[in-house]
Amino acid sequence: MLTRIDHIGIACRDLEATVDFYSRTYGFQVFHTEVNQEQGVREAMLRINGTDDGGASYIQLLEPIREDCAVGKWLEKNGEGVHHIAFGTADVDGDSAAIRDKGVRVLYDEPRHGTMDSRITFLHPKDCHGVLTELVTSATPGNEQN
Amino acid sequence: MLTRIDHIGIACRDLEATVDFYSRTYGFQVFHTEVNQEQGVREAMLRINGTDDGGASYIQLLEPIREDCAVGKWLEKNGEGVHHIAFGTADVDGDSAAIRDKGVRVLYDEPRHGTMDSRITFLHPKDCHGVLTELVTSATPGNEQN
Repeated sequence: MLTRIDHIGIACRDLEATVDFYSRTYGFQVFHTEVNQEQGVREAMLRINGTDDGGASYIQLLEPIREDCAVGKWLEKNGEGVHHIAFGTADVDGDSAAIRDKGVRVLYDEPRHGTMDSRITFLHPKDCHGVLTELVTSATPGNEQN
Repeated sequence: MLTRIDHIGIACRDLEATVDFYSRTYGFQVFHTEVNQEQGVREAMLRINGTDDGGASYIQLLEPIREDCAVGKWLEKNGEGVHHIAFGTADVDGDSAAIRDKGVRVLYDEPRHGTMDSRITFLHPKDCHGVLTELVTSATPGNEQN
């Protein structure tokens, strides 16, 4: 069951400049940064609020580290902006299987490694009214509020 | 102070079909529907989770009711997808004034009428790294969780 908006993923050309914009303009602080080599991105998570499922909602800023990654190609075509949205669930395996059974294309056969050791998968945007949609299960449920 | 992701605004061509997709695929339910003549849209709010500021986070599905409204023009150019993101605040007047003072273009001189009698304004996407960004103050803080 999807129980929260986990994050909004935003593609940017310069991670530090974009973090600075979000910090200076809105007061949002960096909660976590990492490089995901598989996805080909550097990223910063800005924690916005806690959620009533014990998790949290974030803005995820993504800068491609190579041109041929999915975010790099998207950025080249679309410019900076919202790249995807993500819903949080305690069971990404079960939910993605159930959603696949409904005829929506799930992009990975098995969930992969995501931000903060989460497990993630994506749904095809053409099956989701144009929205690239991620499902994410946190590594340690509830840790987001520590 | 911006204290939550209030909603993700998604432009669609057929509100009922898109509501049906979100309901059937994810189990999300319609919390509220309305027509906003000024914005030129029919909309449905799907409540996803409560937030620790006493509010909630929603998916907002938007179908233009005329071609010349902002969402209609955007849809014509981009196709279905994420149109804007919205942060919740207790003080849209104070926050939008402070953000304007930082050099970000605020699209309305004064906040206007938004969904569920909220007061809203928008920030220019070109000043926000490509993201059309809304600020929203709920009509009755906390009522979202009733």
